[in-house]
Amino acid sequence: MNYKKIFNQLGIILLIEAVLMIIPFVMSICYRENIRVVIAFAISMAAVSIVGALFKLNKPERESFYAKDGYFLVALTWVLMSGFGALPFCLSGAIPNYIDAFFETVSGFTTTGSTILTEIEHLPKSILFWRAFTHFIGGMGILVFVIAIIPKTEGSVMHVMRAESPGPVVGKLVSKLTASARILYAMYCAMTFALVILLRVGGMPWFDSVTNAFATAGTGGFCALNNSIEGYGSAYIEIVITVFMLLFGINFNVYYLLTRGRIKEALKDEEVHWYLGIIAVAVTIITVDLTLTKHHFLDSLRTAFFQVASIISTTGFSSTDFEKWSTLSKATLFLLMFIGSCAGSTGGGLKVSRITVLVKSGLRSVKKAFNPRSIETVKLQGKPVDEAVVQSITAYLAIYMVVMAASVFVISIDTWKGNTLLETIGSVVTCMNNVGPAFGNIGPTGNFSEFSVLSKIVLSFDMLAGRLELIPMFMLFTKYIIPKKERSISNMK
Amino acid sequence: MNYKKIFNQLGIILLIEAVLMIIPFVMSICYRENIRVVIAFAISMAAVSIVGALFKLNKPERESFYAKDGYFLVALTWVLMSGFGALPFCLSGAIPNYIDAFFETVSGFTTTGSTILTEIEHLPKSILFWRAFTHFIGGMGILVFVIAIIPKTEGSVMHVMRAESPGPVVGKLVSKLTASARILYAMYCAMTFALVILLRVGGMPWFDSVTNAFATAGTGGFCALNNSIEGYGSAYIEIVITVFMLLFGINFNVYYLLTRGRIKEALKDEEVHWYLGIIAVAVTIITVDLTLTKHHFLDSLRTAFFQVASIISTTGFSSTDFEKWSTLSKATLFLLMFIGSCAGSTGGGLKVSRITVLVKSGLRSVKKAFNPRSIETVKLQGKPVDEAVVQSITAYLAIYMVVMAASVFVISIDTWKGNTLLETIGSVVTCMNNVGPAFGNIGPTGNFSEFSVLSKIVLSFDMLAGRLELIPMFMLFTKYIIPKKERSISNMK
Repeated sequence: MNYKKIFNQLGIILLIEAVLMIIPFVMSICYRENIRVVIAFAISMAAVSIVGALFKLNKPERESFYAKDGYFLVALTWVLMSGFGALPFCLSGAIPNYIDAFFETVSGFTTTGSTILTEIEHLPKSILFWRAFTHFIGGMGILVFVIAIIPKTEGSVMHVMRAESPGPVVGKLVSKLTASARILYAMYCAMTFALVILLRVGGMPWFDSVTNAFATAGTGGFCALNNSIEGYGSAYIEIVITVFMLLFGINFNVYYLLTRGRIKEALKDEEVHWYLGIIAVAVTIITVDLTLTKHHFLDSLRTAFFQVASIISTTGFSSTDFEKWSTLSKATLFLLMFIGSCAGSTGGGLKVSRITVLVKSGLRSVKKAFNPRSIETVKLQGKPVDEAVVQSITAYLAIYMVVMAASVFVISIDTWKGNTLLETIGSVVTCMNNVGPAFGNIGPTGNFSEFSVLSKIVLSFDMLAGRLELIPMFMLFTKYIIPKKERSISNMK
Repeated sequence: MNYKKIFNQLGIILLIEAVLMIIPFVMSICYRENIRVVIAFAISMAAVSIVGALFKLNKPERESFYAKDGYFLVALTWVLMSGFGALPFCLSGAIPNYIDAFFETVSGFTTTGSTILTEIEHLPKSILFWRAFTHFIGGMGILVFVIAIIPKTEGSVMHVMRAESPGPVVGKLVSKLTASARILYAMYCAMTFALVILLRVGGMPWFDSVTNAFATAGTGGFCALNNSIEGYGSAYIEIVITVFMLLFGINFNVYYLLTRGRIKEALKDEEVHWYLGIIAVAVTIITVDLTLTKHHFLDSLRTAFFQVASIISTTGFSSTDFEKWSTLSKATLFLLMFIGSCAGSTGGGLKVSRITVLVKSGLRSVKKAFNPRSIETVKLQGKPVDEAVVQSITAYLAIYMVVMAASVFVISIDTWKGNTLLETIGSVVTCMNNVGPAFGNIGPTGNFSEFSVLSKIVLSFDMLAGRLELIPMFMLFTKYIIPKKERSISNMK
């Protein structure tokens, strides 16, 4: 592995994080916040700058950069960004316990939105801004951002992008990845800006408009109100956010095609069809269920749409306490958590395209059992999916289930905290799929504060593993990080 | 498809079912039970004989018998056997509602052991015998039994055995399948007989010894007492049953090797190593957990061993109300439900060998991500597993998860029955894995009586799908059952 290059890059990334912290730092001064908050940001910036500068001192001797270098860089980036990103929370006293602050920051960057905070509204604005800003940074990817702003050789960039991008296949929008990353960020920023304006028009204060737009854009779910979006009590705001949660859950490739006027191509995207189809079914079921249980039809429809959009896009906002819903509606939300959004969006979950391929490959094996000699390829968008991709997707499901099972097991040790089995399972499902809330104590009105330190660390791992789609996080625990001459030679060939 | 041959075979199988019913019929006379019970068995035998004889009238014009014929025969066999097997329960008034009786019979034949009965002990002995006997018949497989007693051409038998046998690969013990089936049944009967004697020695009445031995042998879990094995209040009985539940969860191939003196080979079975390893870990955790929460160490160990053996072998007996255990111990049992027993045993679940292959194929894909050019095969027993088998196992997991998700969804419609989300999920997990009990209302002291008719039908499907490993049950819902000339010609080649 090319450690010098990895740490050199990591240095640049940490320096960028220091730069990003300038915004909340300035805010803390402008809003005349407690001096402790100002100092917290100053110390955090200093710490991350120093470490970043030290890492950057590594001058790469060679440019070779392989897949495993990419995974390792991505894993380290996300862990260290979260580690330093947690400092302002911790030093300012907003979240006194460092593990809690780390959990909250990982939840922010991975756009999960699970919180350990019990009381949000009294926190300093700069802290709340930084909390929402992590969603925005993490949504499109930290490294995609780096790629967008720093010129690099194409080869190394591809491995980084593959390691960080959500979904089974990396779609290059244009032939140059740097250009692709810039286009992605431009669309991302434009959509976020549009949302800020629409929220402001709806009467939401500027600060809330910006932070909620960040949380929506990254499909994160941190809100500056204890009651989440319900707290604004506005149907207009609910509808606007519903629409944008759905939009940010769609593959950005589709928007790229739209901006190029390739509308027909954009409308033919099979993953989006499934995505919208699943949403339609879920909304119908929950609407009927809510209407039957005493609610007004239009209210039910709006609430159902909001909550379905929030869960399938893995945002995790709530406009009502769905913990009080019937088992049918809760089961629907629970299943949506696994599905998640489209590949190449800012959302999490297994991704609609993966589910589609899994179902199709399952059906194929049923057909094959009946006609052993039949040869059939799995198709997506009418085109055959490479068999290696089908294999990697089914293998992905296997690792995903194993990690989930192992996590449930460890979290269940928190037994003396009084978590039920459903809360235990729910915490892992919501964290690995980067959703945010689950059921029971960690439902829309609950939080993760009662979990043990061990559980918080495991759930942080799950959030990172879910966001980075498992592989990079394993990198931190394998023999591959110990360089083997033999291996590196065989890779050089 | 060769319908004439399929229905001809089906006729034979139904006639065999009529013969098997003679035993409880005679019992009902000997025990001088209510005349209604005697008549119930008489009518059931008459009905199944008539239909069987009518089916048998189909004289096959050709002998060709393909994989899909095998699947179709197996699926029809299990559904019809259960359909007729439910008649004695229904007609005798033991289970007045036919859907309930059908659920109970499916639960019996698939060796699940989930019950809709709230009060078991007052039922006629002949009915209790028939209930336990379905476990014994279903355990080793109805069709394997047919193969064992009726001489047939090898080719057609292979497809039947593949469709009915648990686990990813069918192991022939000896070159002739008929001989294999006979050896399997011989070992099965011998072990069951040994268990009957050991239970009797422990002071259990003859009737209970036989029925509990049937329930253990088939890894079913129906007990003649309301309190399951706890009701006997004997540590000796608990230990004997623990050992036999574990034994019946092991691949019978191992016993075959042992009887041939190939002890070294038998001891090297990788699946058994994992199976025992998982059990050791689970028992340790639950023992520690129980000991810490005020129980005596040896009591904890015995209870933990019993319950772990009961769940991983998918028997489902209980020696304590594990619903009252901590979340840690419950989560452990919940995960064991998915794992299940060894392939080629009488148990259910995903099977240890499948889990092993899934984990290994997951690890391989992690390695492949780091070293894209690496080529590695998944190994089991030190031998490479055919890539087609790996693929079919990962595809199996995909269908399994999809069927489970769809079932959870339908069962959750029972929302007005007051089932919680955990009970909903638990019901599907326990039925698909053929375990028996789950948590909450359907825990060790609960039952399935409160579920709706729709849910009982879906859960019956899940039990059959789990027992027959999905593929055959799909057969009943595909276009393949409508004969297509084109297709059948292409298969003839």
